[in-house]
Amino acid sequence: MKVHTDSFEVGTKGKGTYEITDQVEAIVRESGVKSGIVTVLIRHTSASLVIYENADPSARTDLQQFFERLVPEGEDYYVHTTEGEDDTTSHLRMVLTRSSETIPVVQGRLALGTWQGMFVFEHRRIPHRRALVVTVLGE
Amino acid sequence: MKVHTDSFEVGTKGKGTYEITDQVEAIVRESGVKSGIVTVLIRHTSASLVIYENADPSARTDLQQFFERLVPEGEDYYVHTTEGEDDTTSHLRMVLTRSSETIPVVQGRLALGTWQGMFVFEHRRIPHRRALVVTVLGE
Amino acid sequence: MKVHTDSFEVGTKGKGTYEITDQVEAIVRESGVKSGIVTVLIRHTSASLVIYENADPSARTDLQQFFERLVPEGEDYYVHTTEGEDDTTSHLRMVLTRSSETIPVVQGRLALGTWQGMFVFEHRRIPHRRALVVTVLGE
Repeated sequence: MKVHTDSFEVGTKGKGTYEITDQVEAIVRESGVKSGIVTVLIRHTSASLVIYENADPSARTDLQQFFERLVPEGEDYYVHTTEGEDDTTSHLRMVLTRSSETIPVVQGRLALGTWQGMFVFEHRRIPHRRALVVTVLGE
Repeated sequence: MKVHTDSFEVGTKGKGTYEITDQVEAIVRESGVKSGIVTVLIRHTSASLVIYENADPSARTDLQQFFERLVPEGEDYYVHTTEGEDDTTSHLRMVLTRSSETIPVVQGRLALGTWQGMFVFEHRRIPHRRALVVTVLGE
Repeated sequence: MKVHTDSFEVGTKGKGTYEITDQVEAIVRESGVKSGIVTVLIRHTSASLVIYENADPSARTDLQQFFERLVPEGEDYYVHTTEGEDDTTSHLRMVLTRSSETIPVVQGRLALGTWQGMFVFEHRRIPHRRALVVTVLGE
């Protein structure tokens, strides 16, 4: 049984989804773990993680538009407003999705289904460097 | 310390919740792990996992009706529409709930509270076979 | 490689967020695990867990107000109403956030980012004792 920890960064260019399945797969491969789990954490409160349909990009267009409507910018009742209109909404969109994901590793690979990919979901308009930590546990 | 991996399928008959607590408990028991964690992954993007109140079924009626309103079918702005009106909504409802859950195992059992059950949340209208992977880690 | 399990309670005084980062950190420290993961479960269906901005309290004011609007009390279609107006809404708010969180442990500490804290999110009006289980896995 072993623990393997690694980290990487993703450069984002505004709101939207950025696939990281390959980076996580590479760390699992490097760990040598054949059977176990992998935990991925995004170390930010204005970006999050999602498992989402990775075949047809139109699915991710709807995701973005849906969140613009579900958590609209500029609501009168927001009080956390000093860092811009996309700040408090970024925390709220983050909390409705995920900060960490844990996925089984089977035969040395993520056990994701055919259409599942892992994505960083960026909620801020300006470019950011997003730091992720990955821990693989197993044998 | 050991890793135990298993999988099972759930047949769904339209939108709604299907309890899987017993199936996950059985895999934990079979693993022989007394102390550790169990990770459950649903390998689909149009169904998800929830921990929910499992005593009074009316709680799950409200869950279903709430999601019909929160993520309504047929919105004008949806562009991911080739697979039917319940396709993009199923991805959006999935992303607001969970693809994987990790639960502590204590004394050989899921450490869930009295009213907590684990459910597959089906978001599509027609029957599906849903594949789940379960990894138990511990001693 | 070891497994360390512990539990604690949080007293809540109505709807809102209650930080538990320090309690979880203390259990990780006590476990002696330097490299691995920690899983936290809240054993209730009317309170949940969130990772949220822990620097500026106004961010958490917006979180509370947002959920009051996203999942309003007193909707006509609710049928799970025997335990009060804040009962079914508490389940719905719980399911949109999290029952368990798994976080990497690096150098004996939670690998959370600078602004990330872990909180119990209480969804009921009257005071409650909330039970949490914590499992640390690693070496």
